[in-house]
Amino acid sequence: MPITPPNYNDSLLPEAQRDRLEVVLVSPRNPLNIGAAARAMANFGLTRLSVVAPFAPTWREARSAIGAPDLLLSAIESATLAEAVARCTLVVGTGTLTYRKPEQPVITLPDLAPLVAQELARGGRVALVYGTEKHGLTRDDLAHCNLLVEIPTDPHQPSMNLGQAVAVCLYELSVRARGVENTPLAPTPAAPSGHLELLANLIEDTMQAAGYSPRGMEPANHHDLRLLLRRLNLTAHDTRRILGLFRRILWRLNRDKHSL
Amino acid sequence: MPITPPNYNDSLLPEAQRDRLEVVLVSPRNPLNIGAAARAMANFGLTRLSVVAPFAPTWREARSAIGAPDLLLSAIESATLAEAVARCTLVVGTGTLTYRKPEQPVITLPDLAPLVAQELARGGRVALVYGTEKHGLTRDDLAHCNLLVEIPTDPHQPSMNLGQAVAVCLYELSVRARGVENTPLAPTPAAPSGHLELLANLIEDTMQAAGYSPRGMEPANHHDLRLLLRRLNLTAHDTRRILGLFRRILWRLNRDKHSL
Repeated sequence: MPITPPNYNDSLLPEAQRDRLEVVLVSPRNPLNIGAAARAMANFGLTRLSVVAPFAPTWREARSAIGAPDLLLSAIESATLAEAVARCTLVVGTGTLTYRKPEQPVITLPDLAPLVAQELARGGRVALVYGTEKHGLTRDDLAHCNLLVEIPTDPHQPSMNLGQAVAVCLYELSVRARGVENTPLAPTPAAPSGHLELLANLIEDTMQAAGYSPRGMEPANHHDLRLLLRRLNLTAHDTRRILGLFRRILWRLNRDKHSL
Repeated sequence: MPITPPNYNDSLLPEAQRDRLEVVLVSPRNPLNIGAAARAMANFGLTRLSVVAPFAPTWREARSAIGAPDLLLSAIESATLAEAVARCTLVVGTGTLTYRKPEQPVITLPDLAPLVAQELARGGRVALVYGTEKHGLTRDDLAHCNLLVEIPTDPHQPSMNLGQAVAVCLYELSVRARGVENTPLAPTPAAPSGHLELLANLIEDTMQAAGYSPRGMEPANHHDLRLLLRRLNLTAHDTRRILGLFRRILWRLNRDKHSL
């Protein structure tokens, strides 16, 4: 007599939250790893994969995506990380701190689950971002992240395989980031990453129009500004208001310049 | 200024317990997966890998074992699963129930951690056993397991990649099976699997010598006996006494037969 397989749907994220947990791979080199990430996503019932500037043009054909060919076909290819996470309200970078000086909060994977649960419950959209196999996320990539998560590993061998790291994170969040269902009493959602990027660009234009800082400082300001905006935990509403203010300031600065 | 990488040793299993958590791969086909398992073990500070009847004779050369070549070189190759887990006191089979009728207790991975913590704390030796990539563990393999663990996955795509499944299990146990340190007050250790196998063989010989069951029943008895012995949770001391009893019985049966 065939037995009914157990249904673990109850152990995974609620279905209404699954399409708001995204995986973003930045410049992956090995299509096998892209396929492995897709397979792990399918195992945990997730569907939204983004690939930023992939190395191999044929990455969608990864044969390691067993059971997940649709997921690869529907994956989104972006030119930049900013574009890939534009709609996300909590952007989590992954990696090891071994060769990196963190500029944002760092937490371990077991501590991430409650934060993700809260963000999903209040209707937010969460991205888990993975860097290249060899070097992980760059400093510039990390400027788009609200926080950095680390998988606790042996200091002698901290660096995990990309597909395995994705599987471990998705397992942990599937099993332990099941928060409350969406509720109207939840705090307002955070600003999507794309709005913060708009704001950062607008502030930079304003700085330039106001002659605020020497040209040599621009790269440093660019970076620090992005970190700052993510540290502030702005809501979508805050961000719209600040955007409005800076649009007005910039318009006045430019008008005054031309009228001189 | 270089920053000191965080030390996650405190988040992993105590060093004194790490060499008592073993990974056993039964008939793996793809050396890439063996290497991936070795790499995940190194990531979580484990060292004892056994490979049972591997398909490719060159499996020790797996290039996917980044950071773990020593672990592959020192891995133990066995002809049978019985041999591989002979010293283990808690043998945990892994897999999905989708195509399988379980004959022993089944638990999910999050529920496994406390059992493993207790077994390691009382000085026991735990094996996590993985079957072939395509079909998982056979019914015969499972007869050597005390219990079967499942990773909660989407019923539409339950089957995980071998290297990813190993990484997920080792992450969970590293982070959550840290029990108390060894204590003299802990209950006595369970019997090693090899002693149970000795006892099973001895009981079979005794059944035969006593003319207990028709020859056609032997395969079924063989299987049920192994399941039964693992269900009893015999201590090492129990097992030694029962072995002694059956040795005596068998000796008498054979003596009486010859003296007829």
